[in-house]
Amino acid sequence: MIIQLKKGISENDKASLVERINQLKYKTTEVNTQKGDYIIGIGKKEFDIRDIGFMPGIADIHRVSDDYKLVSKKWKVKNTEIDLGDGVVISEGGMSIMAGPCSIEGEDQIKKTIDHLVENNVKIMRGGVFKPRSSPYSFRGMGIDGLKTWYTEARKAGIKIITEVMQVSQIEEMHDYIDIYQVGARNTQNFNLLDELGKIDKPVLIKRGISGTIDELLYSAEYVFSAGNENLMLCERGIRTYEKASRNTMDINAISILKEKTHLPVIADPSHGIGIRDHVEPVALACIMAGADGIIYETHEKPEEAFSDGQQTLNFRESAKLIDKMRKVFELKRSL
Amino acid sequence: MIIQLKKGISENDKASLVERINQLKYKTTEVNTQKGDYIIGIGKKEFDIRDIGFMPGIADIHRVSDDYKLVSKKWKVKNTEIDLGDGVVISEGGMSIMAGPCSIEGEDQIKKTIDHLVENNVKIMRGGVFKPRSSPYSFRGMGIDGLKTWYTEARKAGIKIITEVMQVSQIEEMHDYIDIYQVGARNTQNFNLLDELGKIDKPVLIKRGISGTIDELLYSAEYVFSAGNENLMLCERGIRTYEKASRNTMDINAISILKEKTHLPVIADPSHGIGIRDHVEPVALACIMAGADGIIYETHEKPEEAFSDGQQTLNFRESAKLIDKMRKVFELKRSL
Amino acid sequence: MIIQLKKGISENDKASLVERINQLKYKTTEVNTQKGDYIIGIGKKEFDIRDIGFMPGIADIHRVSDDYKLVSKKWKVKNTEIDLGDGVVISEGGMSIMAGPCSIEGEDQIKKTIDHLVENNVKIMRGGVFKPRSSPYSFRGMGIDGLKTWYTEARKAGIKIITEVMQVSQIEEMHDYIDIYQVGARNTQNFNLLDELGKIDKPVLIKRGISGTIDELLYSAEYVFSAGNENLMLCERGIRTYEKASRNTMDINAISILKEKTHLPVIADPSHGIGIRDHVEPVALACIMAGADGIIYETHEKPEEAFSDGQQTLNFRESAKLIDKMRKVFELKRSL
Amino acid sequence: MIIQLKKGISENDKASLVERINQLKYKTTEVNTQKGDYIIGIGKKEFDIRDIGFMPGIADIHRVSDDYKLVSKKWKVKNTEIDLGDGVVISEGGMSIMAGPCSIEGEDQIKKTIDHLVENNVKIMRGGVFKPRSSPYSFRGMGIDGLKTWYTEARKAGIKIITEVMQVSQIEEMHDYIDIYQVGARNTQNFNLLDELGKIDKPVLIKRGISGTIDELLYSAEYVFSAGNENLMLCERGIRTYEKASRNTMDINAISILKEKTHLPVIADPSHGIGIRDHVEPVALACIMAGADGIIYETHEKPEEAFSDGQQTLNFRESAKLIDKMRKVFELKRSL
Repeated sequence: MIIQLKKGISENDKASLVERINQLKYKTTEVNTQKGDYIIGIGKKEFDIRDIGFMPGIADIHRVSDDYKLVSKKWKVKNTEIDLGDGVVISEGGMSIMAGPCSIEGEDQIKKTIDHLVENNVKIMRGGVFKPRSSPYSFRGMGIDGLKTWYTEARKAGIKIITEVMQVSQIEEMHDYIDIYQVGARNTQNFNLLDELGKIDKPVLIKRGISGTIDELLYSAEYVFSAGNENLMLCERGIRTYEKASRNTMDINAISILKEKTHLPVIADPSHGIGIRDHVEPVALACIMAGADGIIYETHEKPEEAFSDGQQTLNFRESAKLIDKMRKVFELKRSL
Repeated sequence: MIIQLKKGISENDKASLVERINQLKYKTTEVNTQKGDYIIGIGKKEFDIRDIGFMPGIADIHRVSDDYKLVSKKWKVKNTEIDLGDGVVISEGGMSIMAGPCSIEGEDQIKKTIDHLVENNVKIMRGGVFKPRSSPYSFRGMGIDGLKTWYTEARKAGIKIITEVMQVSQIEEMHDYIDIYQVGARNTQNFNLLDELGKIDKPVLIKRGISGTIDELLYSAEYVFSAGNENLMLCERGIRTYEKASRNTMDINAISILKEKTHLPVIADPSHGIGIRDHVEPVALACIMAGADGIIYETHEKPEEAFSDGQQTLNFRESAKLIDKMRKVFELKRSL
Repeated sequence: MIIQLKKGISENDKASLVERINQLKYKTTEVNTQKGDYIIGIGKKEFDIRDIGFMPGIADIHRVSDDYKLVSKKWKVKNTEIDLGDGVVISEGGMSIMAGPCSIEGEDQIKKTIDHLVENNVKIMRGGVFKPRSSPYSFRGMGIDGLKTWYTEARKAGIKIITEVMQVSQIEEMHDYIDIYQVGARNTQNFNLLDELGKIDKPVLIKRGISGTIDELLYSAEYVFSAGNENLMLCERGIRTYEKASRNTMDINAISILKEKTHLPVIADPSHGIGIRDHVEPVALACIMAGADGIIYETHEKPEEAFSDGQQTLNFRESAKLIDKMRKVFELKRSL
Repeated sequence: MIIQLKKGISENDKASLVERINQLKYKTTEVNTQKGDYIIGIGKKEFDIRDIGFMPGIADIHRVSDDYKLVSKKWKVKNTEIDLGDGVVISEGGMSIMAGPCSIEGEDQIKKTIDHLVENNVKIMRGGVFKPRSSPYSFRGMGIDGLKTWYTEARKAGIKIITEVMQVSQIEEMHDYIDIYQVGARNTQNFNLLDELGKIDKPVLIKRGISGTIDELLYSAEYVFSAGNENLMLCERGIRTYEKASRNTMDINAISILKEKTHLPVIADPSHGIGIRDHVEPVALACIMAGADGIIYETHEKPEEAFSDGQQTLNFRESAKLIDKMRKVFELKRSL
């Protein structure tokens, strides 16, 4: 169960409330986010809401039969909207586009990408400065200095930044230069990282694990939410299967299922989902039709020269075409 | 390599041609379909088309680097169109809808379904009379008598029939009562069945294996084609993965990849692809956006009373809504 | 529930029995095998065995909570033994070795393989004469003539034959020349084939499907058993996963789980299970330790010249070493 | 290529060497471990060892065609041995047993487990104090205080400790109270953690990722090794597949393949590999037969009361039996 507390509930009232819930054989966790205060009750027994509802300090009580609680749609009818400032909002009503290179490579690349985004009225730029790589001998990203250069250029152009955070110590280092922290597919169950991101006042996008289940993704979001940060979104990016004709298998089902299960925005990543440039467009359009609230994809002036992921990266001409089509498809989707 | 032969090539000329190809270290197979005659050469060595091209009796020569040959798009630029008669054509230009119950259950159910299809201008009805079931104690279908009843009603209404054939002995038995033979996911690599379907003059739809690769599906089609039947289409119906939130994982990537690799029509089955009624619609629309030339799905007057697959079957109201939306999405897709 | 009938139960008594079981809301199927007569009751309701037990003609009644019934260990404490004649028995007490080439290639190859088996006191030879191949252009086996040659040589040497049957029409054709019908991984759910093999008086080995579940394998065995043939064994041969360092992923767990769930012998196929010659030995020994009642593997005088599967085939020297080690490991296993 | 440097090579000689290798179009990384100094050259071009071999300061040069280098068996014929002190060595010659509970729960549980290990002459105890849990509301372990209690008791009894480290900040905190750092399946590709463990003077066991490939596991080991720590071992613990009859699918193939590819010890974890108590024994014995150098498994005085993983945990009686059998099987394995 989720009990939303009134602002300013007294410590005494809270203690009585916890005691009563424990009497019902429910274990309690107090959650204080930037937006509200909650008591989460974990238990299996049936209970009568009236046994608790009369107590002082309660704003609302919700039964949530899912094992994850705060990220469930069962208690929060209104979908989460994430406001990045300057009118940039990620929500069900809009169709957020996040585009940019796999790796940030230098000032020239940054500027050209920003120009491309501005021309096409895209407000959020993706790119990696800390790069998780299977081999220790591969390029591991430009690091914090690359991020600072990027930030300077992006701010001039009114562009928001999403980039991956790989470990706890980077959270503070990156904080002033980003708009969205991205948790990568290899870190979906890095619970310490999730805990720490719960204490931050910036939005977080969590990618599904390389072979993570839908439930595990929701649980990972529950970590961040219950640690205090409600500004969360989820990202489907393909799963690992036996089929090797594509890099991953884009789980289109997961988009539709996540939209039913959670109030958080759901973003799709067709670049990783299929991993082949020529097929990014149809997969992206399919994801919108399946219900995605946004698309994140890779673009580069010259994909064949990109430091990483060139095979799945669109050039700017392809990217512009995709943006145009995505907007038309979203328009239709909204009207159906 | 694929060598298209001229109609009426002499046996002598053919023998000389085969000899020459064998000299190039290519093994040959002669293929005679209802539409044309071919010699397939299997080998790895480089060759100069001019070494063969001058010989009499040749209509055209194509290099095909894929391991499958006749189903490859590399030699046949024009996509295959399947004409079912009475103006019903399955092709890239149209958007074929095939709808009906999982199992044919009786005359009343057949009539009601046909009425529903006629009202919504759907021309092809699906349904099973021979049912592959994991357990020998489950309902295994109404068999040939059910098919005959179905056929009588369908013909009155101008509706075409697609139904699953499970074994060689059923091919002839079913022949006069169907319009499309369906090869089910458990029979995708039943090579004897594929061979025999190659000798038939009716179209065949091959479903991807339960955990079949895209290449295996194309090879299975190559069996039917090389045995003589060019009237073929493929069907993506979801693959088996670790994710159990859905019955299967709809491989949206496969639709886009198949459309690139083969000239055969590609049909999508969202009912089996996700296996949950409420999500059939978004998945179906996504498949169209990914490039599917048709959608096959399950509908029943009262899904909760269906003999099988009720959990993924739409009622007629949901079905009508889906049909309407699919047509709108396909309209947009075509215009992009 | 499974009701074992007494030999010679009257039709009247049987009818009364079925009526009573149906009154308990259980659906009934009568099963007559070469060894016994049964009524299988399928239902979910609790019942009191005493409500039925007093009726005439009943030998025994068993509750079986598994969804498969006749192959379950829950009713048949004694494990199934399969007697091939001449003292060759497949059972838990022994360790059956089945060895031979992937494909039967000709008389010379047959004789050399038989010599190798005789020298090493192996009694069962494997080999394919009908070969399921992904591509229609690959070698599809020597067919029935190859089988006859093989049979002649094998009988002279006292060697039993196991070979794959691919379709219903081959069952009779092969019947007099084999000792065990093998159902291949692509046919595990070819239900018509399973039904027909239930009517035959020779043993059947069913391979697990390419990505079949353990339960599906048991259900497939239930098909054969309930159609009349109790002489059955199961074979774990690796499953399809994302890991491509090996051809398949040998599911060692399945061996131990199958031994718990069924009274049928469990054979392991390390050749397909890993698909790499150098690793066949450790995998084979591991399978014995996990509980396998027999091992089937590929050997050839010159694996590098084999028509198929050479990369996973042992030469005779390696094969002899493996046989020796398998016997030692099995000896230890039995003593633990 | 791997170039082993002589102790005391001059900076000048090293610079010349790097320059020469770069001229061959190989990128270089200098690696300094606690045991030696290396230059790793990454490139694809053929080169003649004599072009480099004459230069001063070189101890040895090895071509390594694998993408991972330092963990490859191709350059280091002698298998890595890990000496934990007091005569406890993990190596191919021995059979290391690591046993204990999933979670450390308190002093009483610790003492009883230690008594059990001492009685059975087991030298290494496993247990979790930092627990990665899908849900934020589950028990997350006793933390550093639990570790200190455990350490005190273990040292009294001469028992070594292996436990999971979840994040960089814990490395130092745990350092004085453990003998082996375990990297869990969710952290196999936590590259920052791997980098930091490379700087530590204690051994590291890396578990294979939940759906990690064999190559990814080797790459992760390459991270630790190239960051300075050669005291490494790998652990196969089952992979995620479609089969849900077991918790994971134990990849027996991986054990044999890893033993071929790397000089590092390979440990198997049958408890997670199958996840069902009754089947831990056969799977453990199979892993030894496949070539495992050690087994890590879960045991608890009262598995049904364990804080976590009770369903796959052996009680002490079962554990003692397993230990005895494992030693017998290893004895046979060594003699084959």
